[in-house]
Amino acid sequence: WVPMARDGVMMLEREFKFKNFKLALEFTNKVAELAEAEFHHPSILTEWGKVTITWWTHAINGLHKNDFICAAKTDALLDN
Amino acid sequence: WVPMARDGVMMLEREFKFKNFKLALEFTNKVAELAEAEFHHPSILTEWGKVTITWWTHAINGLHKNDFICAAKTDALLDN
Repeated sequence: WVPMARDGVMMLEREFKFKNFKLALEFTNKVAELAEAEFHHPSILTEWGKVTITWWTHAINGLHKNDFICAAKTDALLDN
Repeated sequence: WVPMARDGVMMLEREFKFKNFKLALEFTNKVAELAEAEFHHPSILTEWGKVTITWWTHAINGLHKNDFICAAKTDALLDN
């Protein structure tokens, strides 16, 4: 996970690589399910063989402890 | 659809608004299904209440007639 600022807002971003579009889309849907369960929604960029997840907290325009927890939970989805 | 250049590559981009995350994700999956059927894959940015689709052709680093066709087919998914 890379902490980065976009338009002055701190975010946590990580790129996940996959062998094809189908596997990328499956990961997108897993992350979406996590987001709904957590009532916290990242941006999810789905491309051929790649998904980029970005977590941040809109309400504070930056990073909250919860974003780091959600990032860790996103990593855990890879093993499922 | 807005034609725009990103890193010197011409692309077609459109933002679709939805009432919540679930509806946005449903649209993401419809576009993904279209992409697999067309053997042509856009980038799909899924956010709370919003999906941004970007079509372009990697092989020519720009826009091909097929991108415009896929953009029109993406619009048609809204009515389904």
